[in-house]
Amino acid sequence: MTNLILTVDGMTCGGCANSVKKALASVAGVTEVEVDLAAKRVSVQHDGSADEGALRSAIENAGFDVIG
Amino acid sequence: MTNLILTVDGMTCGGCANSVKKALASVAGVTEVEVDLAAKRVSVQHDGSADEGALRSAIENAGFDVIG
Repeated sequence: MTNLILTVDGMTCGGCANSVKKALASVAGVTEVEVDLAAKRVSVQHDGSADEGALRSAIENAGFDVIG
Repeated sequence: MTNLILTVDGMTCGGCANSVKKALASVAGVTEVEVDLAAKRVSVQHDGSADEGALRSAIENAGFDVIG
């Protein structure tokens, strides 16, 4: 298992967090996503096959900004 | 110009609305998107070339539900 921590800007409520979760869950290999709204932190657990670029793109395509 | 009105569930704040707007704006042919959060109404203006299925998919992929 691989864990990736990203900082994501633009999430302001549970609906936003849900949006990011669903977008990431649709990327092949992702097994779990956790969002800490206050910290802007998104934790993505995957089986090692998920490409970091694909994960970042999924968040950007959902309308949020990966800032770290 | 073609205008499509969709009812979208799960948007609860301006960040959600922004997410839906950006997801739709990335679909080829889309020229303008307006979101009425309270009414759950999303208005999409496009040049006639945008496929309705692609518009619905963009919203679903961003983590929101098209319910009408």
